[in-house]
Amino acid sequence: MPIDARHPKEIREEIRRGKYTGVTAGLAPGYVQANLAVLPQEHAYDFLLFCQRNPRPCPLIEVTDVGSPEPTGVAPGADLRTDVPKYRIYRDGELVEEVTDITPYWRDDLIAFLLGCSFTFEWALMDAGVPMRHIDAGRNVAMWRTSRACRPAGRFRGPMVVSMRPVPAELVPKAVTVTARFPMAHGAPVHIGDPAAIGIRDLDRPEWGDPGIFQAGDVPVFWACGVTPQAVALASKPPLVITHSPGHMFITDLPNHALSVI
Amino acid sequence: MPIDARHPKEIREEIRRGKYTGVTAGLAPGYVQANLAVLPQEHAYDFLLFCQRNPRPCPLIEVTDVGSPEPTGVAPGADLRTDVPKYRIYRDGELVEEVTDITPYWRDDLIAFLLGCSFTFEWALMDAGVPMRHIDAGRNVAMWRTSRACRPAGRFRGPMVVSMRPVPAELVPKAVTVTARFPMAHGAPVHIGDPAAIGIRDLDRPEWGDPGIFQAGDVPVFWACGVTPQAVALASKPPLVITHSPGHMFITDLPNHALSVI
Repeated sequence: MPIDARHPKEIREEIRRGKYTGVTAGLAPGYVQANLAVLPQEHAYDFLLFCQRNPRPCPLIEVTDVGSPEPTGVAPGADLRTDVPKYRIYRDGELVEEVTDITPYWRDDLIAFLLGCSFTFEWALMDAGVPMRHIDAGRNVAMWRTSRACRPAGRFRGPMVVSMRPVPAELVPKAVTVTARFPMAHGAPVHIGDPAAIGIRDLDRPEWGDPGIFQAGDVPVFWACGVTPQAVALASKPPLVITHSPGHMFITDLPNHALSVI
Repeated sequence: MPIDARHPKEIREEIRRGKYTGVTAGLAPGYVQANLAVLPQEHAYDFLLFCQRNPRPCPLIEVTDVGSPEPTGVAPGADLRTDVPKYRIYRDGELVEEVTDITPYWRDDLIAFLLGCSFTFEWALMDAGVPMRHIDAGRNVAMWRTSRACRPAGRFRGPMVVSMRPVPAELVPKAVTVTARFPMAHGAPVHIGDPAAIGIRDLDRPEWGDPGIFQAGDVPVFWACGVTPQAVALASKPPLVITHSPGHMFITDLPNHALSVI
């Protein structure tokens, strides 16, 4: 994975000018990257409440003021209409377009939500000596819908989605304590071991991403996943939702350690 | 302090029937007690956003559905109109009445917010061997407004309020790590040492509560305080706000450890 170690401000500047439209893995290492969801004000209370009620899959790190595209809490001066490399526009729950600038879609009644992402805890895991097999293999992580329902809020309801990482058995406690320090990046695992216990039938066939790569002695460890709020938002078929394109995250000015609680 | 170790359900039942109207310190030890704020739906989005933006002073553990007095997430079956020993009714920011039942005030557009409280982290501190000098002396904790502004949200804005506890210097690191585990009960201290650094002029004259009791070698340690959201809500002078009366908290079914992240 190529690394671009410039400050997030410089990288966002390049994204803003349309010079970079690729995925953000490897960009500004050490800084928090975030999932984006943009919704009309009419749906914002329910979405905010959904995040409050389901903090593991929906760790909300920023909510803009209504009509403002500036995430003043995590990246003052940034513009969420232009500073994400690629966006998806959904109407009535259907993907209608993929664009690199949402200025033409922006309205005075839109609110942007930024949610913590797994990049932060994967960094913490690797830093603690826990191998990330999918990263080593250049693959995507494996994800499934589970049999665990999120607590509904207004129009938003649906199952929790999890990502799975194979972890050497002797490192499972370390993987728990390291990620528990980051509740704003999904926190501790929600399940360890038997996939059937959370409604996953076949570990070889993920619903999203690539199958996990297991080595002898690895245990499947499941974390709540940021796909949850997106899936839940789209399932309610709101007239307009804008998200980042998969892997094309918003890069904040927050160092990863800013999200650790201990 | 007398201890009543029955389950929260039994104690709430007695409070509901009007048999108990006192403070809740010492009731159902081991269970999370919570601050209550009831607001009309019109103000709920701003308040929810204020809590999201200021999680240290405003750790939101429950938000009821609009019009529902049942906190299904933390105490299914409970009724927030009757299950708090004493309530305060504020109109346009002014205290107008103190009652033991808010059923006559309840409306279809009201939403109840429950916020974590310092009882949880004081329990964790004592359990870790950190003395709570104000509890030993049967006093209230000392509180001040600080020079640190909360991040505003809509109509809600104001300074962060802190509580201060004298901690023996050698136990300060322990006091930090123990409380950091409980972000939903204000988390780690926001400041240690020099009161002037956060705008507190006179450590002997708190704005609320009683002066702290220092022993030789004690250091003042400051935590974000649940008075913050109440002060902020009242400062905006909404037509109606209902809160618990000081010390008369709502007792949830959550064991204290349910709030620990690690």
